[in-house]
Amino acid sequence: MKPSAEDRALARRLAGRFIVFDGPDGSGKSTQVDRFLALVRESGVPLCPVRDPGGTDVGERIREILLDRAHTGMGIRCETLLYMASRAELVDQEILPALREGKMVVSDRFLSSTLAYQGAAGGVPPSEIAAAARVATQGLRPDLVLIFDIDEEAAARRLSPLLDRMEAKGRSFHRRVREGFLDQARQNPGQYVVLSASGSPDEVWAQLCAELRRRVDSLPAQRTWRSSKG
Amino acid sequence: MKPSAEDRALARRLAGRFIVFDGPDGSGKSTQVDRFLALVRESGVPLCPVRDPGGTDVGERIREILLDRAHTGMGIRCETLLYMASRAELVDQEILPALREGKMVVSDRFLSSTLAYQGAAGGVPPSEIAAAARVATQGLRPDLVLIFDIDEEAAARRLSPLLDRMEAKGRSFHRRVREGFLDQARQNPGQYVVLSASGSPDEVWAQLCAELRRRVDSLPAQRTWRSSKG
Repeated sequence: MKPSAEDRALARRLAGRFIVFDGPDGSGKSTQVDRFLALVRESGVPLCPVRDPGGTDVGERIREILLDRAHTGMGIRCETLLYMASRAELVDQEILPALREGKMVVSDRFLSSTLAYQGAAGGVPPSEIAAAARVATQGLRPDLVLIFDIDEEAAARRLSPLLDRMEAKGRSFHRRVREGFLDQARQNPGQYVVLSASGSPDEVWAQLCAELRRRVDSLPAQRTWRSSKG
Repeated sequence: MKPSAEDRALARRLAGRFIVFDGPDGSGKSTQVDRFLALVRESGVPLCPVRDPGGTDVGERIREILLDRAHTGMGIRCETLLYMASRAELVDQEILPALREGKMVVSDRFLSSTLAYQGAAGGVPPSEIAAAARVATQGLRPDLVLIFDIDEEAAARRLSPLLDRMEAKGRSFHRRVREGFLDQARQNPGQYVVLSASGSPDEVWAQLCAELRRRVDSLPAQRTWRSSKG
């Protein structure tokens, strides 16, 4: 489906911005990321799409450790710091250089996931996550964090092939993840956008474009990116 | 060589303590660690020897990434957080459980190395390292940090087979590492002991035992270890 001229104009107004797509597993976020990336490409806007964790050589090695089922006993603090290490490399090698070149950066997950999964659901105090994040992100904050919100029952139905893994962590874990995302949005209303992800992909997409249109004019001024050295 | 009754008595007075051996590469630290571990074992004191990074399944996987020459371009912040992730697992799975059981924990390197290598020499601000360390160590601090001090020229001579790697980082890097260790000791005189490591192994060992004897009575009271859960 060809994007409308209006949607392409919206993408161009978001040029050079750092936008995060995040939310619970099963929210349909990745479908929306793909559709948004296609729109940005069609609009001729320079783009750097990334995923967190991963996205760099070292980050992919770290991702392997995180996803390896041999490490199910890994402590929550080690897990938190591994996500941060992967993120540090992603910020340093991909995100900051792209922003300096004026590219739009679209990340599938970012710090918001650590705050929800390891923080709200896993029990690591938010202040400690924020402190470790200073090392990882060099103070970089996304211009917009789009939260695809879905209740844990609906998410579990969407993830039926993965139901065992969902169930393994337990419904209460996923309820805390969702609350963790919503809490962040409540505390940072200027940066976060909560989208109801329970509708059809077309409905969610329409809502996404409407929200971006509503927010694009009130974004903070584009930053000049300092060097990451030192 | 059989340890003296006096040395065995010293080891027993250090039962249940957390002691870190640290210092620049080429300081001869590992020789002294081995000799100290042998003394502790001969003395019948329950012991948990560890090395940082490493010491756990996940930690050894992280150590592989850190030592892999394919990753020489890794950013200093990612490197810092990988050391912290390995340390978090070591504290959680090995060090805290051992201290709770009343064992002496002897670690070859710990947070002091990150402050010297990635901090003083690598340029990551000490405040950021300290912040990330809170996630990794759960506030745990060693009872004693023994710094085996050696100037970078003498260290380079000892490491002659590894001279290329030493030279690759440059003498000024190793000078900053050394200064980083000495600065920590100046700022924490009650916790750190600086030993001159330029003498023979027997001379360093004699100095080590003398310093431990001088410090053992002024160590803080043994702690009761809280659970690491939550």
